[in-house]
Amino acid sequence: MEAKMATKIASFVLRVLTFVFLLVSIIVLGTNSKTIGNDEVHFHNVNSYRYAMATIIIGGAFNLLQIALALYRLVTKTDGSILFDFYGDKVLSYFLLAGAAAALGSSVDLKANMDMLNSFFDQGNAAAALLLLAFLCSAIISVLSSLALSNKPN
Amino acid sequence: MEAKMATKIASFVLRVLTFVFLLVSIIVLGTNSKTIGNDEVHFHNVNSYRYAMATIIIGGAFNLLQIALALYRLVTKTDGSILFDFYGDKVLSYFLLAGAAAALGSSVDLKANMDMLNSFFDQGNAAAALLLLAFLCSAIISVLSSLALSNKPN
Repeated sequence: MEAKMATKIASFVLRVLTFVFLLVSIIVLGTNSKTIGNDEVHFHNVNSYRYAMATIIIGGAFNLLQIALALYRLVTKTDGSILFDFYGDKVLSYFLLAGAAAALGSSVDLKANMDMLNSFFDQGNAAAALLLLAFLCSAIISVLSSLALSNKPN
Repeated sequence: MEAKMATKIASFVLRVLTFVFLLVSIIVLGTNSKTIGNDEVHFHNVNSYRYAMATIIIGGAFNLLQIALALYRLVTKTDGSILFDFYGDKVLSYFLLAGAAAALGSSVDLKANMDMLNSFFDQGNAAAALLLLAFLCSAIISVLSSLALSNKPN
């Protein structure tokens, strides 16, 4: 029972950490712009950044829902659905990784081909790296919520 | 006991399917080249493609090891380490997804900026899509090997 509570608290902290990383990531990505001549380049001009932004927003919304649920369960000391956490955490971690990898891969390759946009892609890279940290947190949560399957009361 | 055997066979088939997708993906990615003037462009000239190639080779090697292990267990009717499968499948699926997402994100953005390399990036996209299919198989295996945690003899 003690170990179970510790896991719950660890998951909760990691969920909040995921949210913090997503929040900083959305700010870094959203404020990224560069003026070249009369044109301004924003995140929505790069396909992968637009995709990463979508994963941040959708993933963040789901993450917030999970935080609210976890908080409710911690306070009321009730058990939620183990399977909801299991599948939810799995999908969320895949989701965040796909956004981060697409943005990172694209940043590296575009940067190599467009010198005048170096600083723009550097900031894009930073946002993608933050998204990758959010993924790492959610991957650990996913391991915890998977292991919880084996501890469930039979 | 019956259900457990069915899960094992399903996992095995999916592992073989993962290998097939990886094999076709490595062929499509490796044979991808385009001549422009005197220069030839290969997969190793694009950072994300090189990364995707690495994930295919390392992921494929690990996948083969898992197939050999699964075959051994099916034949000898022994139980292997549930946790090895659990962590192995999780990491493999993240690995393949990162490679696929990086290559897809990069293909889409580079294609939008380099018209003369359209067919090169189309073939790169095809390889990345195959890698994504391999990821999907490994993600399903990962769900199965996670669920196996709850069925383990206590």
